[in-house]
Amino acid sequence: MTAELLKRVRDFTAAELIGKDQHFDSLPEQPTAEASRLHAAGLANWWIPQQYGGDGVSLADSVDVVSELAYGDAGFAFSAFLPVLGTLMLQHFGEEELARPALERLASEGGRVAVLGSEEEAGSELVRTATTFRTEGDRLVLTGDKYFSTNTDAADLLMVLARSSDDEADFAVIAVPRDTPGVEMVKRWDLLGVRSTGTYRVRLDDCSVPAAHRLRGNGLRVLEAVLNASRILIAASAVGIARRIRDLSMEYAAAKRLRGAPLAENAVFAGKLGQMEALIDVMRNQCRAAAAELDGVLAAADGGGTGLHRVGTLRSALAAKLYCGQAGWDVASAGSELFGGLGYTQDHPIGKLVRDMRYVAIIEGGEDIMRDLLYARYVLPARKRR
Amino acid sequence: MTAELLKRVRDFTAAELIGKDQHFDSLPEQPTAEASRLHAAGLANWWIPQQYGGDGVSLADSVDVVSELAYGDAGFAFSAFLPVLGTLMLQHFGEEELARPALERLASEGGRVAVLGSEEEAGSELVRTATTFRTEGDRLVLTGDKYFSTNTDAADLLMVLARSSDDEADFAVIAVPRDTPGVEMVKRWDLLGVRSTGTYRVRLDDCSVPAAHRLRGNGLRVLEAVLNASRILIAASAVGIARRIRDLSMEYAAAKRLRGAPLAENAVFAGKLGQMEALIDVMRNQCRAAAAELDGVLAAADGGGTGLHRVGTLRSALAAKLYCGQAGWDVASAGSELFGGLGYTQDHPIGKLVRDMRYVAIIEGGEDIMRDLLYARYVLPARKRR
Amino acid sequence: MTAELLKRVRDFTAAELIGKDQHFDSLPEQPTAEASRLHAAGLANWWIPQQYGGDGVSLADSVDVVSELAYGDAGFAFSAFLPVLGTLMLQHFGEEELARPALERLASEGGRVAVLGSEEEAGSELVRTATTFRTEGDRLVLTGDKYFSTNTDAADLLMVLARSSDDEADFAVIAVPRDTPGVEMVKRWDLLGVRSTGTYRVRLDDCSVPAAHRLRGNGLRVLEAVLNASRILIAASAVGIARRIRDLSMEYAAAKRLRGAPLAENAVFAGKLGQMEALIDVMRNQCRAAAAELDGVLAAADGGGTGLHRVGTLRSALAAKLYCGQAGWDVASAGSELFGGLGYTQDHPIGKLVRDMRYVAIIEGGEDIMRDLLYARYVLPARKRR
Amino acid sequence: MTAELLKRVRDFTAAELIGKDQHFDSLPEQPTAEASRLHAAGLANWWIPQQYGGDGVSLADSVDVVSELAYGDAGFAFSAFLPVLGTLMLQHFGEEELARPALERLASEGGRVAVLGSEEEAGSELVRTATTFRTEGDRLVLTGDKYFSTNTDAADLLMVLARSSDDEADFAVIAVPRDTPGVEMVKRWDLLGVRSTGTYRVRLDDCSVPAAHRLRGNGLRVLEAVLNASRILIAASAVGIARRIRDLSMEYAAAKRLRGAPLAENAVFAGKLGQMEALIDVMRNQCRAAAAELDGVLAAADGGGTGLHRVGTLRSALAAKLYCGQAGWDVASAGSELFGGLGYTQDHPIGKLVRDMRYVAIIEGGEDIMRDLLYARYVLPARKRR
Repeated sequence: MTAELLKRVRDFTAAELIGKDQHFDSLPEQPTAEASRLHAAGLANWWIPQQYGGDGVSLADSVDVVSELAYGDAGFAFSAFLPVLGTLMLQHFGEEELARPALERLASEGGRVAVLGSEEEAGSELVRTATTFRTEGDRLVLTGDKYFSTNTDAADLLMVLARSSDDEADFAVIAVPRDTPGVEMVKRWDLLGVRSTGTYRVRLDDCSVPAAHRLRGNGLRVLEAVLNASRILIAASAVGIARRIRDLSMEYAAAKRLRGAPLAENAVFAGKLGQMEALIDVMRNQCRAAAAELDGVLAAADGGGTGLHRVGTLRSALAAKLYCGQAGWDVASAGSELFGGLGYTQDHPIGKLVRDMRYVAIIEGGEDIMRDLLYARYVLPARKRR
Repeated sequence: MTAELLKRVRDFTAAELIGKDQHFDSLPEQPTAEASRLHAAGLANWWIPQQYGGDGVSLADSVDVVSELAYGDAGFAFSAFLPVLGTLMLQHFGEEELARPALERLASEGGRVAVLGSEEEAGSELVRTATTFRTEGDRLVLTGDKYFSTNTDAADLLMVLARSSDDEADFAVIAVPRDTPGVEMVKRWDLLGVRSTGTYRVRLDDCSVPAAHRLRGNGLRVLEAVLNASRILIAASAVGIARRIRDLSMEYAAAKRLRGAPLAENAVFAGKLGQMEALIDVMRNQCRAAAAELDGVLAAADGGGTGLHRVGTLRSALAAKLYCGQAGWDVASAGSELFGGLGYTQDHPIGKLVRDMRYVAIIEGGEDIMRDLLYARYVLPARKRR
Repeated sequence: MTAELLKRVRDFTAAELIGKDQHFDSLPEQPTAEASRLHAAGLANWWIPQQYGGDGVSLADSVDVVSELAYGDAGFAFSAFLPVLGTLMLQHFGEEELARPALERLASEGGRVAVLGSEEEAGSELVRTATTFRTEGDRLVLTGDKYFSTNTDAADLLMVLARSSDDEADFAVIAVPRDTPGVEMVKRWDLLGVRSTGTYRVRLDDCSVPAAHRLRGNGLRVLEAVLNASRILIAASAVGIARRIRDLSMEYAAAKRLRGAPLAENAVFAGKLGQMEALIDVMRNQCRAAAAELDGVLAAADGGGTGLHRVGTLRSALAAKLYCGQAGWDVASAGSELFGGLGYTQDHPIGKLVRDMRYVAIIEGGEDIMRDLLYARYVLPARKRR
Repeated sequence: MTAELLKRVRDFTAAELIGKDQHFDSLPEQPTAEASRLHAAGLANWWIPQQYGGDGVSLADSVDVVSELAYGDAGFAFSAFLPVLGTLMLQHFGEEELARPALERLASEGGRVAVLGSEEEAGSELVRTATTFRTEGDRLVLTGDKYFSTNTDAADLLMVLARSSDDEADFAVIAVPRDTPGVEMVKRWDLLGVRSTGTYRVRLDDCSVPAAHRLRGNGLRVLEAVLNASRILIAASAVGIARRIRDLSMEYAAAKRLRGAPLAENAVFAGKLGQMEALIDVMRNQCRAAAAELDGVLAAADGGGTGLHRVGTLRSALAAKLYCGQAGWDVASAGSELFGGLGYTQDHPIGKLVRDMRYVAIIEGGEDIMRDLLYARYVLPARKRR
């Protein structure tokens, strides 16, 4: 299936994404027409399990799907795979009556589910989350401000991390339908890259939902568990952007002459591209290994999400995000110099690709956070070292 | 004088440049109002010798002037110092009747002189220049296309590198008044950074000028000699941009808290800023050393430019450009991660600063060209090593 | 089996290798007593297929075996796995009457087989090989000088790359028993690292062997095919050395205090170790992916080595060697500063580990060669890109 | 004078240092015969002011002297310039009756003065110094253990940092003659590089000296002030080692052929050497700028050392040490790969040069300490930024 699926994704990328750099870079309206066409092509939310009517593509295979989509546009890829956060939450931590219809609809209609975690003050320290929920009868009422949230405006369901107003140690993820009164998009961020996404600052003002919309388990652990998936796929988009930079370099080198010979025959150029190729291969293998590890964890999960809870944040996922952010930036930095003066203009897509690449290192935890987690979880406890 | 001049430049930067990042980033009309105010403040073309009515600021001191201006806006700084190319050409290689009135006017009226070297095919290999001049009586007629040329539209005089249509080994720099029939701005480039400059693709169509507008000496050597100055000052703008990133980081760290303490007290943050501070100091000292060396060469020049010819491209100027491109990019890359998610939006100036910084490595010869020149001129000949 | 095997290897490392840094660093006599004990522990030549009486451990699993051994001593690991070159040659390209007894003996007696490729003039360009063979009746006679060859003195069989004295396009690998008259160890190299290996400069003077000792196929392709295995395992030793550096760092940090707190709680230290941990994970996954790919190729080989020939040099193996050389050096460079002044003395093993690590980048093709091969084989041919 | 002096130093290096890599790498007896010949050549302690019978070479000029000596052997250079610590202490903080005869003897006899600062527990935190002094009548009695101290065994005078046994806030530097009873060399360190130095672990056991041997001022500030000089000159030795690596590369490239052409014509090789040349130039200019700044401070000092106290640690000196440690390591790392397999053997000096280079980053404060000082002293206080 993979080879066939991958071909379909590649065809989609070639037909719908390539050559539209300026369009995707223009903060296009959400959802984009191309997102609808991804659904029409039967490719939206490709990872949703078959029991919910989805394609059930593994995360290991999703690495290649994301690499292909990001080859076309990283923001498009990000918007397309980010619902994985919400669907994993629903599947592993949601009550059946909440989860099943939501997942079935996401499979059949190709919509979106968003996650609202980050806040301005808390930054990356989710334990400082200030959004609260309170119980009113059999309902939960949420209030707070969320800083960066992607796909939110066009989503059906918003998965909100909040803290109990009664017990500050009680964190929950609560599913809030987009059309709940009190949900407001305060602003759409004018991002530096991945600009085809819709990323919002959101206000929740006394948003009331049924108590059954609360997911099982500690909200911080729920979020941590599913972040493994998005971090790996963010890392995988670096593979796609890097491949695009490589191919644009080769296109340029075919036409350009240096010292009386084609650039493609220049030894210094060859060395740069050889280095890029190595980094691409290494990035891809790290993403695949991390995704395969997470596939294993998910397969072993008991349905109650307990296994996921126990695993927490995966070493390989942290390493994938950290490493691809760094290696991707190395590729982008090298690329930004390969095209001479032209590469310093909007007439060439490299500027966009460099800006897009930066998201890998920044979104869902910067490099310092990845390093801190790796140290605290996998180096400091001697028995976790390997 | 330097301390007083520097204070005036710093005041100008604070009053006229700081806080206008979006304005400068918007491809503003040329010349900008701020450029006129630089002249009004008596600061335009500050290096022109006193014998022509200028301030005669040395290049060593100009390093700090440029660092201050680039702290405000690197594109503004670039536009402001780039005429140094043309004024050095006029002063050292121009006939008195051409040079004196032009230099006096640039000193008193604060206008611009542009240089037109690069071409699409030739890229960085000026020896492949395809723009030609032919002799018609006591006039020279130029025809050709120039790829990247900054300040051109608003300049009074264009210094054009061309090759004789009769003798392909004969290269000349020829002064073409901006209003000469046949001079056409084909397009203004939509650059990735330093967007407050006006950088153009230019067509020259049978542009006829007096024969005395040809500068003395081989045009390639003339250009090479003066490029030392602009390369050093391009490098110096990296110092200014890096200082701005450092100061923005400290502003952010004063307000931001991490793990219950101000970010400014965080050891990892401190280490990053300590590294930045070292790079800033090293970049500045390299620029100053290179500029002082060039000041010495210019002081020893015999007026006919012979000394300049003989020196050719300076090791220290090549090293300044190469190194500041690299260290500046290191600072910009580190900076682009320091501001969390906010730093990935247009709400923060860091995105512009990263794009601006890139110009240091790219404009007037990329890193490979700097390395090749260093090797060919200063490593391969054993007696030149030191 | 893997977990049990790995435990045995780990136990062996702890019992026989750890704590003997000075011994291994002293150019010990060959074969070392520890090598004999590896055989006694049933672990020598662990990859030889069961059909020859070996353990048939896959290359993917061998990555972890090598990482464990290199954790103890990289030179020991190198000496132990390097016979994989010769055994793969014998198995896939050797005549049954040559290969079977040789492989069976290597499995049962734990001896060595060496490969003699490099020459002084040819350097990394094997096509310039000057060692020749000529046919005399049903025998081949070899003459020439080989520059770097490891395990040679203690090996039973030497696999020599030579060129026909009659046809300079005809390259062959020929098995020369160690005790053949004319084989002389000219010198043992005083290497900077992996000093527990025996690496020799070798003279072959009219060494006569049966014609059946010539392996099937072009010698250059034979060597290229099997180099995949050793390059991956060289890369895998970087994982082991890096893990050792990490663990020594944590040992040191447990005892050392900085600013009134244990070093292990210092944020800058944590960041460095977190980065190391990521690199270790990425290196290991790249080695495993490359080894799994090679396992697949070997499994599909038709016994005549044709499949191996066709595959040539693997992208993932090149990337593993290049990347682990670089990332390993990053870890070693960081490590060399972690132990303060003590780390700059022979009283601490870090100096040896840094020298050992360097071999990853240098042996069997430096970084430039890896980049060139990646470019020529996998970037330049558009259809090979992925 | 400089040109003539420099020529003498260069001649000395060529005659006495070059070609003795193995000798200098062998922990030779102290003082080395070469050190005596440096004095015989009139070059020992070249910076001692003329008022004491010395040559009074500025620190700015000393940068080049050190670069030349380190080109021959970095350990030799380190041993030769390190007495600058003690002579600056004596000159600026010592009582006339102590300082004058000591300085005059160092100028005329070319001996050594050592500094004993570091301790095992304290590491780089001198404020944790545990060596004590107590007052007994008009004498001071010192007791304690010092960890790393260079030149100690062969020195006439040891400048010891100690803390009052009565007042733990009272730190002093006290001059202890080498032959004072109770001074014991516990061990000579077996360093990884700069092995021609004599570096010792020292025990002071009730060493009694006249009270006038205590230098004026707080001992921590005295040491901090003079460390500027040695840090700059340690940085300068990176210039010398890097130049040697460059020249060895060019020697190798003249003889070596790659793909049918001399290596010296290879574009990738050229790029590496061009990069090296830039780094050498930048390192040198940073060292010179820092040294010139320190020369200015010393010239303005009031003789009582007050000016030196006030200045404390210089930004440019910190940046020089940090940067040259990093750039020097980049050059050494690149160099360690340039010579193929031969460069991984003791037959080539590159291994020694890499080990020698490491000292620049480690001795007298590692990279983290430099960054912390830069941040705390020059970034955190807004008025100190520039």
